[in-house]
Amino acid sequence: MTENSLSFDDLRKKAIELTKKKIKESVSKDLMIINAINNVEELEKSINVLTGRLREWYALTNPELVNKISDNEKFVEIVLKDDASESVMGAPLDSDDEKAVKAQAVSIHALIQTKTFLLLYLEATMDVVCKNVLTLSGSTIGAKLIREAGSLKRLAYLQSSTVQLLGAEKALFRHIKTGARSPKYGHIVNHPLITGAKKDDRGKVARALADKISIAARVDYFKGEFIGEELLKELQSKFGNK
Amino acid sequence: MTENSLSFDDLRKKAIELTKKKIKESVSKDLMIINAINNVEELEKSINVLTGRLREWYALTNPELVNKISDNEKFVEIVLKDDASESVMGAPLDSDDEKAVKAQAVSIHALIQTKTFLLLYLEATMDVVCKNVLTLSGSTIGAKLIREAGSLKRLAYLQSSTVQLLGAEKALFRHIKTGARSPKYGHIVNHPLITGAKKDDRGKVARALADKISIAARVDYFKGEFIGEELLKELQSKFGNK
Repeated sequence: MTENSLSFDDLRKKAIELTKKKIKESVSKDLMIINAINNVEELEKSINVLTGRLREWYALTNPELVNKISDNEKFVEIVLKDDASESVMGAPLDSDDEKAVKAQAVSIHALIQTKTFLLLYLEATMDVVCKNVLTLSGSTIGAKLIREAGSLKRLAYLQSSTVQLLGAEKALFRHIKTGARSPKYGHIVNHPLITGAKKDDRGKVARALADKISIAARVDYFKGEFIGEELLKELQSKFGNK
Repeated sequence: MTENSLSFDDLRKKAIELTKKKIKESVSKDLMIINAINNVEELEKSINVLTGRLREWYALTNPELVNKISDNEKFVEIVLKDDASESVMGAPLDSDDEKAVKAQAVSIHALIQTKTFLLLYLEATMDVVCKNVLTLSGSTIGAKLIREAGSLKRLAYLQSSTVQLLGAEKALFRHIKTGARSPKYGHIVNHPLITGAKKDDRGKVARALADKISIAARVDYFKGEFIGEELLKELQSKFGNK
């Protein structure tokens, strides 16, 4: 559809509107990623603390189970299914007590489900906004890097040596202030390439990984092609476990 | 039913069993109260922190609402109903973003419901175990006093001046160590008789209230009559606001 009737002024207005819309969208998607990862972290904390309380409570009726299952999410699921009125070791719960304990488990379960959902959402959003970063670093590490940088744009403009240390600010300032050992990596410490590397190699792997993430962020920010797979393969063939 | 065939040994065994059962029951009900209040407090913390995160997130799409509704539980309910895709001030959320934000609200809502349920459970349990304490202090203050004492039995055996300060341990030790002002009350500070009293009268009211709670705990522990209403009325006629 051609619109011959459009004046220069109309075109100008349209262009500005479009730009505003684009800016708004890109800003809000960055912020969506940051908010999602903030919420995921807070959910994790709440899940852990509340499950700790649930364990204390449940230990009164079934101490064996509490000791046997160390994974929090699994523990909550078992409590939901477990029949607490038929315990052997601990005191049996009457039906009101059991309802109260299970109510606690139900609400933790809701938190776990939301966390799972937000992680999926995070991945889907990053797949649109920054697929290269996502592919290289994974969703949680990538989101944390964007958060620490402030935005995808700022992550794209950071030196890769800074990217390497994002998330290690505390250790870095301790290093500067007291001369303690300088940190080798921030959030990327949890990346499988680093956790899988030998201890002595980790600094080297971290440097290379931060390099590639930096490139990925720049390509993502300037809407370049998808090169994440390629960059990751390069790293894997160099440092990955056979 | 008479059991003439029972030997002395059988009787002895039965008596021991019965005693064990009674002890087990009484212990576990105390512990149920303590666990319930612990979980309620932890739920409150999680609700506040997670709602804080939800507010940050929701401020992107509807900053007015975030500022207008200061009550956390009310805020969560409104978010669940609010149509975030039709916002005026903030950026509109696309449907995936909205689902993510609402998932967070849903899980906080689950926590709020569990908290409400546990408070009801707490009151019902205390109504059986320590109705006098419940009547005088209310369920949350009463449960915290039992927790700080360790059990209903220990609360019953404490001096009323100690009951008055239960929950103010930190301030008390600061007083002993640094000579700072000695605390006048612990958990009972939130009791309506104290919050409703003039500032100068609060110490006096706290002393009288702790006295009556002490009496109530003793009567409860030794399975005495229900005198809570009476004790409370005495206090109200002496200190209550007309």
